[in-house]
Amino acid sequence: MPIAETPLRLPIPSLPKGFRVAGIHAGLKRNPTREDVALVVSDRPATAAGVYTTNLVCAAPVVYDRTRTPGEGFRAVAINSGNANACTGARGLSDAERMAAAAGEQVGAAADAVLVLSTGVIGEFLPIAKIEKGLGLVAAKLAHDADAVVTAARGMMTTDTRPKLAGSTFTAGGTAYTLFGMAKGAAMVGPKLATMLGVILTDADLDPRDAQLLLGEAAEQTFNCVSVDGHTSTNDTVLLLANGAAGGKRLKGADLEAFGRALLDACDTLAREIADDGEGATHVLRIEVRGCPTRDQARQIARTIADSPLVKTAICGADPNWGRIVSAAGYSGVFFDPEKMVLRLNGTLLFRDGAPVEFDGDVVSESIKAARETLIELDMGFGNESIRFYSSDLTAEYVHLNADYHT
Amino acid sequence: MPIAETPLRLPIPSLPKGFRVAGIHAGLKRNPTREDVALVVSDRPATAAGVYTTNLVCAAPVVYDRTRTPGEGFRAVAINSGNANACTGARGLSDAERMAAAAGEQVGAAADAVLVLSTGVIGEFLPIAKIEKGLGLVAAKLAHDADAVVTAARGMMTTDTRPKLAGSTFTAGGTAYTLFGMAKGAAMVGPKLATMLGVILTDADLDPRDAQLLLGEAAEQTFNCVSVDGHTSTNDTVLLLANGAAGGKRLKGADLEAFGRALLDACDTLAREIADDGEGATHVLRIEVRGCPTRDQARQIARTIADSPLVKTAICGADPNWGRIVSAAGYSGVFFDPEKMVLRLNGTLLFRDGAPVEFDGDVVSESIKAARETLIELDMGFGNESIRFYSSDLTAEYVHLNADYHT
Repeated sequence: MPIAETPLRLPIPSLPKGFRVAGIHAGLKRNPTREDVALVVSDRPATAAGVYTTNLVCAAPVVYDRTRTPGEGFRAVAINSGNANACTGARGLSDAERMAAAAGEQVGAAADAVLVLSTGVIGEFLPIAKIEKGLGLVAAKLAHDADAVVTAARGMMTTDTRPKLAGSTFTAGGTAYTLFGMAKGAAMVGPKLATMLGVILTDADLDPRDAQLLLGEAAEQTFNCVSVDGHTSTNDTVLLLANGAAGGKRLKGADLEAFGRALLDACDTLAREIADDGEGATHVLRIEVRGCPTRDQARQIARTIADSPLVKTAICGADPNWGRIVSAAGYSGVFFDPEKMVLRLNGTLLFRDGAPVEFDGDVVSESIKAARETLIELDMGFGNESIRFYSSDLTAEYVHLNADYHT
Repeated sequence: MPIAETPLRLPIPSLPKGFRVAGIHAGLKRNPTREDVALVVSDRPATAAGVYTTNLVCAAPVVYDRTRTPGEGFRAVAINSGNANACTGARGLSDAERMAAAAGEQVGAAADAVLVLSTGVIGEFLPIAKIEKGLGLVAAKLAHDADAVVTAARGMMTTDTRPKLAGSTFTAGGTAYTLFGMAKGAAMVGPKLATMLGVILTDADLDPRDAQLLLGEAAEQTFNCVSVDGHTSTNDTVLLLANGAAGGKRLKGADLEAFGRALLDACDTLAREIADDGEGATHVLRIEVRGCPTRDQARQIARTIADSPLVKTAICGADPNWGRIVSAAGYSGVFFDPEKMVLRLNGTLLFRDGAPVEFDGDVVSESIKAARETLIELDMGFGNESIRFYSSDLTAEYVHLNADYHT
């Protein structure tokens, strides 16, 4: 797994009050410079919400967490990478429980106050003894600073080339709050839920149902709108922990809405980062589909374009091959009138009225080459709903990485 | 478009009685050794049936043909490659009509007795003058022999590395009949209709409705069960022409069933050939999904596996990464119990009872390397319906071909 690291996107966001994190190498990954066990601890009991993969074949940690959220009284999230604890049957579930118990022991909490996240190879049993030992070591390193944030975020990485971090602040009812997010995901990323691992932390105080509703809505517009290869993982999970350490009342009404906007913002940053770090990617595709009767229809069209290997290779080749984009919309399963569709690529009009449009192919091709992000705008002309979807291009490097990973 | 040719699969099947074909280079493709205009002529009026793409963005020849089939009195199919006549609006339709008229003129028939097929780049107007001239030249070369068959089949190729041909014979009511098929397709091949161009010819006499029903059923089990990249084309068309030149009555009952079996056989051969010749492919994936309540559910699971870039790259890398296969089934949208699923790869048991099974990874990996075909068998354990689906692996060569084709 010769994944070259890429530079961190700076600045590193601050942790909210009352949270400490750390990551260490516990021997799950072969390379000793790669963290593979991480721990997130809230010094006080926190509200937790979660969104999970819709894959029927889901991993033990997903089964473990989703029966427990939304809820209150959570103290920690125990994380490992290098092994997904997926397709591991009853032993997998018992390993997830042992992982929670071991983390709970370190922070003086019951196993029930701990959520777990695993990512990596499917179908191998967790090296649970290594993880238990690792949780003891990582607990001793818990801190609130930037170094701790980076090691924790690295502890959830698999083929990611860098940690994905987001932060924002908001004020509500006179109190200043902090929101922090970290995520992993570079392949086996396909929408239909959270498509990756993510942990969002805030020092605001939230009702579990409000936390769940807002996390679900934010995921719907962000993590459900990103695809690297359309393959919905067994482990996709995004957790939100809200510990109230900033003081202030439990958020309601306009205050809750302010939190919701900050949450959406952080999730959007993380989702775009996942597409940007797609395995082997040389371009992020930003696909904006407008003019549909419903948001779901817009998403379905955007997703079909995002997942078409022909579209993804065209962008890799800086080829303004609009026929591939238009025909992908055509087989999306959404009914529309092709004559009303208008397509722009990086701002240049390529298709309208069901017929080719004159444009300078070289200019558009150069615009693709010149930027990391390629903007595909499609107006379907039969409604008012829209969606923004992120994807990555398909390169020979993606094939090399995935033909050789594992075994 | 530096596509290397691969050897023809021999023997070359015979044309049915009363058909003549030919292909020539008419200047649509840059390489003068590549045929780009072909003509299929029936010496007597034939019954014709057709199955077409379900893509809403469909090409002019699809619009032209599908209003005319099923029907009787057809004399010819005019074919060009290098230009798909797709997304070309009103001018595209008028070009399709001109192409039909030009072919009709050569064989002494009305434009209405001619069907048309185009394949190639989307969104450019047909060089109709070149095609009209080419149809005159190709008409002079019409013949019934193997050379003519090969040039005609090459005339419909784009990135195919060889013509795809199939033939069979059957006897019904004491009369011997011949069935012949030729097809093209190597990318933009995704199921949800015929996913390619194909022409099936027989010297049996068929009622148009019977021809349509049997062609639809055969396509459902063959061309709708093959995927190279999941991208449903704008031009997919399979035409069946039945001219009755072998003598004998119009087929009914058991005779019609004998024809149906021969048709299914030929379509299966062509479908497998398309997957085998998938762009850059080093393996054909034969995916057999059993134990589903309906055939559509089995197909949906098979298709999801067939289209997963992670499954396709794993096979490219000879990696028995069953987690990718099992998790693809899990996000197919079909509800099932993962505990009941049984997976075998090239005959070796890899997954059962929701947990990993001990197996020798090196042996399975070697079995993938040793053969062109990889067999994936999945028993879902909750019904009696099954499907067989063909796909190809995803290689760096596919990316090279598609990042550089066109512009």
